[in-house]
Amino acid sequence: MILSAMLRVKMAWARPTGPRHEVVLSSRLRLARNLRAHPFPPRAPAEELKAALKAVFKASAAAKSLESAARLELCEVSEVDREFLVERRLASRLLISEPAHRGVVVGEREVLSIMVNEEDHLRLQGIDSGLCLEDLLGKVSALDDELAQTLDLAFHPELGFETACPTNVGTGLRASALVHLPGLALSGQVNGVLQSLGAAGLIARGHYGEGTKVLGDFYQVSNARSLGPSEEDLVSGVSKAVEELVRAESKARTELLRGLGKSRLEDMVFRSVGSLEHARLMTYEEAMQHLSAMRLGLSLGWELPADLTTVNELTVLSQPGHVQMLAGKELDAGDRDFLRATLLRGKLKS
Amino acid sequence: MILSAMLRVKMAWARPTGPRHEVVLSSRLRLARNLRAHPFPPRAPAEELKAALKAVFKASAAAKSLESAARLELCEVSEVDREFLVERRLASRLLISEPAHRGVVVGEREVLSIMVNEEDHLRLQGIDSGLCLEDLLGKVSALDDELAQTLDLAFHPELGFETACPTNVGTGLRASALVHLPGLALSGQVNGVLQSLGAAGLIARGHYGEGTKVLGDFYQVSNARSLGPSEEDLVSGVSKAVEELVRAESKARTELLRGLGKSRLEDMVFRSVGSLEHARLMTYEEAMQHLSAMRLGLSLGWELPADLTTVNELTVLSQPGHVQMLAGKELDAGDRDFLRATLLRGKLKS
Repeated sequence: MILSAMLRVKMAWARPTGPRHEVVLSSRLRLARNLRAHPFPPRAPAEELKAALKAVFKASAAAKSLESAARLELCEVSEVDREFLVERRLASRLLISEPAHRGVVVGEREVLSIMVNEEDHLRLQGIDSGLCLEDLLGKVSALDDELAQTLDLAFHPELGFETACPTNVGTGLRASALVHLPGLALSGQVNGVLQSLGAAGLIARGHYGEGTKVLGDFYQVSNARSLGPSEEDLVSGVSKAVEELVRAESKARTELLRGLGKSRLEDMVFRSVGSLEHARLMTYEEAMQHLSAMRLGLSLGWELPADLTTVNELTVLSQPGHVQMLAGKELDAGDRDFLRATLLRGKLKS
Repeated sequence: MILSAMLRVKMAWARPTGPRHEVVLSSRLRLARNLRAHPFPPRAPAEELKAALKAVFKASAAAKSLESAARLELCEVSEVDREFLVERRLASRLLISEPAHRGVVVGEREVLSIMVNEEDHLRLQGIDSGLCLEDLLGKVSALDDELAQTLDLAFHPELGFETACPTNVGTGLRASALVHLPGLALSGQVNGVLQSLGAAGLIARGHYGEGTKVLGDFYQVSNARSLGPSEEDLVSGVSKAVEELVRAESKARTELLRGLGKSRLEDMVFRSVGSLEHARLMTYEEAMQHLSAMRLGLSLGWELPADLTTVNELTVLSQPGHVQMLAGKELDAGDRDFLRATLLRGKLKS
């Protein structure tokens, strides 16, 4: 089964190979595109959605960037599988809420992917390690060009790409970075720093985007607008702001290490190691808190019983849908907490 | 130096060799005795105290039960050393509050000892592993008989042994057991069970006796009166009541293991292991809580990174005075927490 195979393969972004990976877990770039021949998905009847899905799947099969990609129709997989795709950031809550005639295309190691018939007919997406938005813009644009060879995309000569929601009109681009800010959080600076992003046209959200909780001091930072500047300018604006965040976070970490702070920080990080290595029951929220502490310790060069790749992966594998995928069935919260703790212990000891 | 040698030698009671050692950490039996020739210590001038101390030290040197015992005058050791003796239960707070002409005699592996010029001229004491009050009565009485050969003890034909405080008149005996009741504590039964001891003429106190805090679910249980019944009856009364406590505690532990409780209990115990193995800063109170959880896990037959002897010893070694003895100097609370955490980590890994 394709999804259980994905469970075993490492996502490209989990490897800490990208620039600024100590602070920037991953970058994500998406382009919203629509087919001229069909109404936008929110207003399209089933027949139109079906035709759009078929057209996109066909075009994606011809695209070199998506060689050996998996194509999944959401109504053909289980609810647990759909939850898994959301946790993997390959599907949105909106996409899975109406599975009929919705689908995803997932490229090798999950760098490139497409959501089909979400708010727009196509949401092209690139995710990779560290701060690499320029690089992702190149990759996603190349995919966009390939698809445009076989698909007739809705484009307005003045407004740019047409999208279902006006906030995406123009470039249809959203560039975001998943940043890890434990230093700023511990020193009480994080809210101030994130609020100041507004002036640069950026917004910060929780781990899963708009309206979601902050977990383990991870934040999504992205551009607020997509109309006006060119794609390159938008991306460079986000990159620069994230570089600023990285500097502020690094400074905060250095300051925490001064004086008595070092013992306190070590105490926090190593207690988290102890909990991950020994707990028998653990909620997702608690796991994220401890994994966040381990990421901080690793970034400070401390020797810990897991490397950054493992810790990054565990932030994904600890999610409820992933735990249920591992179990091969739906589980209640208590059983998930038990299996999660077992998984974490195993990963930290191996 | 004698005290630092004591720091290295294991106390006899720490070895879990005695009956009911899973619940009863140690038993303690003391006899209060006074010299006819001198006023009770609280009312004695310095010269009298000095003479009494000399007489007791001399008599103890001749006693076979105290062969190769250490004799310490409290004004000849440091404040840290005196704190160490209190933590070791070889001296009381009262004894060290006025160190001049006060002393202790400490027998092999701390089974038999004498406090000199506390409330009474002599407080003979026996401590050993598990529930062994009858055995201790034999040992301490033998020492009492030996000392009576050279010392003229104050004895009233009707009241029995005369003591400074009327609550000790008669046998001058206090029999106590240090019991570990995490099962009753976790199941919310501990207060009820301890209150019911009153009917049997017993009282329960904190770890260090009257007015001290309960730490790690350890309680001192002892007889309230010493006048009236014979020594044997007093001891047998305490023993029977403690046997009841052991049964109640064992039942509570078994019940905690039923159903979902097992995972929760394992989670608690192993998280404690994780904290002891990894923390960089730890207060004495927190250490006692984790050591208590480990004792519980060991009593349930779980494999843990330390045996019962080590855990018993660590309840003593974690105390502030012991930590300072290890450091060889006085330390502030932050430095003690750091050294304590280091000690605990080392003991759990070796």
